[in-house]
Amino acid sequence: MAAAGMRTWTDSLANVHSLAAAADPAAPRILIGSHYDTVHDGGKYDGALGIIAGIAAVKALLLEAVLAKGIVSVAELEQAAAATTAGQSLNLSQLLPAGSANAQHLLATPVHVVAFSDEEGVRFQSTFLGSRAVAGSLDTGMLEAADADGMTVRQALEQAGFDPSPAALSSAMLRPEQLQAYVEVHLEQGPVLEAAGQRLGAVAAIAGQSRLLVEIVGEQGHAGTVPMRSRRDPLAAAAELMGQLERLCNGGGHPQPTNPELASDDSLVCTVGAMSIWPGASNVIPGATNFTIDVRSRWDDNRKRVIQQLESSMQAVCKRRGLRCHLHPKNEAAAVEANPGVVQRLAEAAAEPEPLLQRLLARHGADGSKPAPAGACAAGSAGASRELAAEGSASGSCSSSGSLNVAPVLVSGAGHDAMVFAGVTRMGMLFVRCRGGISHSPQEHVAPDDVAAATAALYHYLRREALPPAS
Amino acid sequence: MAAAGMRTWTDSLANVHSLAAAADPAAPRILIGSHYDTVHDGGKYDGALGIIAGIAAVKALLLEAVLAKGIVSVAELEQAAAATTAGQSLNLSQLLPAGSANAQHLLATPVHVVAFSDEEGVRFQSTFLGSRAVAGSLDTGMLEAADADGMTVRQALEQAGFDPSPAALSSAMLRPEQLQAYVEVHLEQGPVLEAAGQRLGAVAAIAGQSRLLVEIVGEQGHAGTVPMRSRRDPLAAAAELMGQLERLCNGGGHPQPTNPELASDDSLVCTVGAMSIWPGASNVIPGATNFTIDVRSRWDDNRKRVIQQLESSMQAVCKRRGLRCHLHPKNEAAAVEANPGVVQRLAEAAAEPEPLLQRLLARHGADGSKPAPAGACAAGSAGASRELAAEGSASGSCSSSGSLNVAPVLVSGAGHDAMVFAGVTRMGMLFVRCRGGISHSPQEHVAPDDVAAATAALYHYLRREALPPAS
Repeated sequence: MAAAGMRTWTDSLANVHSLAAAADPAAPRILIGSHYDTVHDGGKYDGALGIIAGIAAVKALLLEAVLAKGIVSVAELEQAAAATTAGQSLNLSQLLPAGSANAQHLLATPVHVVAFSDEEGVRFQSTFLGSRAVAGSLDTGMLEAADADGMTVRQALEQAGFDPSPAALSSAMLRPEQLQAYVEVHLEQGPVLEAAGQRLGAVAAIAGQSRLLVEIVGEQGHAGTVPMRSRRDPLAAAAELMGQLERLCNGGGHPQPTNPELASDDSLVCTVGAMSIWPGASNVIPGATNFTIDVRSRWDDNRKRVIQQLESSMQAVCKRRGLRCHLHPKNEAAAVEANPGVVQRLAEAAAEPEPLLQRLLARHGADGSKPAPAGACAAGSAGASRELAAEGSASGSCSSSGSLNVAPVLVSGAGHDAMVFAGVTRMGMLFVRCRGGISHSPQEHVAPDDVAAATAALYHYLRREALPPAS
Repeated sequence: MAAAGMRTWTDSLANVHSLAAAADPAAPRILIGSHYDTVHDGGKYDGALGIIAGIAAVKALLLEAVLAKGIVSVAELEQAAAATTAGQSLNLSQLLPAGSANAQHLLATPVHVVAFSDEEGVRFQSTFLGSRAVAGSLDTGMLEAADADGMTVRQALEQAGFDPSPAALSSAMLRPEQLQAYVEVHLEQGPVLEAAGQRLGAVAAIAGQSRLLVEIVGEQGHAGTVPMRSRRDPLAAAAELMGQLERLCNGGGHPQPTNPELASDDSLVCTVGAMSIWPGASNVIPGATNFTIDVRSRWDDNRKRVIQQLESSMQAVCKRRGLRCHLHPKNEAAAVEANPGVVQRLAEAAAEPEPLLQRLLARHGADGSKPAPAGACAAGSAGASRELAAEGSASGSCSSSGSLNVAPVLVSGAGHDAMVFAGVTRMGMLFVRCRGGISHSPQEHVAPDDVAAATAALYHYLRREALPPAS
């Protein structure tokens, strides 16, 4: 963050901040955020990609600004780039005559990049701790959530040298009037962009979610001695209900007609992911079973409709089969809409055909033709940070491939830090395609070209929003 | 067994034998068998009931024979009964003038009672070890089956002082020409007799059985980010197949028409008892699942028809859903039919209205009116052995209740030692109702009156088959 020319600090919830200030320090800022925590056995892109893309885009923005204002010449820039050690990126704070503080003269709108501390909730089972602190929606009761060893969030912060006092937490918060927009880049974690042959997509909304548990109690029996008509088999009822849930959500390729309100909702997804069966022996009719239900939709009414219809079916099925059934709600979150203006601008920026560095250097009289190392763009093993930070020349030659002409607009089925900013400021997200839709796995992968495209799109968005009008 | 007036011995597979011989020692014998092993955390009736009923019925038969032949008078019998300690039963071998060897003069047909050693297969996962040794169908490879600690059947037998050598095993075997019939009394382990208000039922056949495992592999994914139409969810396919299996077997109260050959088969039962789901998290679309299938029917063609139709459905469902599915056969046993003549005679014996002791004593001039202790018949806690062995007077007063007028004929859905004798001699079984159909549980319970009724029925059967014509 500092090498990108920004002022940096940490707050009391272990969020890492950086700011490229504007001439007016009170001007509402564009906040770019993502999380630096990850899940156990996860990939290297979930969270980190958005932070690195944010830093790299701001760095490119500041670089353009110093060139535009004549603070640094193209020749000086090329000289500095040539002097960097292999694998290192240009340190913008060293290039600027009076250090990073000069950045405040370069932008019309401040740009703030934040790396949130705890989005996944792996340790304390409490998601969005970092972003809630910045958005001002952290319930201080969350600080008392304990991990598996009984250590609370508060104790963990104190042990790591942070100050979770009310005053310190208050200073971590950005008030709505300090914000112009919140933007987040994240890998899609799903297969939609890949299937559509698109690198990037703008996110129109984040789906609402209900998690429930269905519990069914019947009568255990011997698999050989209880006639079919005498059975009260909870697993057979579970199978019937799972089929009904899938039909309600238009899955499974069933020819049966479904609810018309639900049939047109492409964002609606329903999942049974876990199930328990007692006693669970091949020659015993189960006595009880339960299974989880996860329902998500952009449209809260549809999500609730699915649950109501399933509950009604459950009562009928369990009455017919002589079973005791209960539907236990476990968790519920309403859908959040992104700001249509931000969505539109991100979609436009993502469809911008010009690659980042070529545009930047061409604008200032250089051709950016220093050849990239052969295969540099295909070398995914070098990691996202190298690709994103290598603004010297490597990424330029990769950007001509792919289809950036139209950026599709998606609904996110997964939760993101952006959710907590939806009620605070104008929120938008940019999704990056990932291989096979796989995330939360070491197999998670984003092609280097797509990382470059996401960074370029964010740069184009910031250029339009934060650079002063061309002189 | 000895107190019932029989000669006793053990064989090399730890079966316990007893024989009431006939005048012609080579006459084919009636073999009455059941097992003395049980499952972990099981009940006290599964297996033991049939052994105790066999011993008690033979004792009553010999008692009737000594009275009929005037070897013992009713007065001597009552005197001996009065001299027994409370809770002890009359020792017939002491009552007979020349000991138990005298029994050979009493019967026209030898009656052999055997307690089999290992029917359940809990320790070695190999069922019917004891009865196979007697029936001559023990594959000697079974002796090398090992328990969880690596000890084989052979080693366990040797450690306990038995001799599992080929010669000794051969002497345990009864050749077909030595047998006239095999009869087994067992608790039903199901709810049919209780639901019908019947104490006893004759068994017409033991259902054939197939155990299979269905394995389905799809594509794991995020519950929020993969659209329904892009999913390859193995658990949803499993639910669909479980519904189809239940319909094929006429279960679940479905209104859908089913296969006409299967619809008329009341003995057909299909069970999914166990299931595994990977990775099994509420917010993850499963990547793989498997589930067990247990299909049983008296009619092997129907059992195979169910499996063929399910496999055909599975191929269609998995093709539509883009999944890889496999149906793994795990175990298969053909149905066995009981001998219709034996079934008929057992059904007649079970419908015999006269109670055991009243009939016996009335026939010989006593009224059997020594009053039973109040509540003796309801005292289930005293255990089956007391009820069965208390042929002095206690059980007599209980037999007037219940509905013995017609003994129904059932199909056994569970396997029994009787299966291994079906190909060797004329086989028949008598089922006794149990509370709630519960077995393989400490809650397993058979009412004392029903134990007495089963013993009386077996006695009536033996009276007809083994007593010499009345002089």
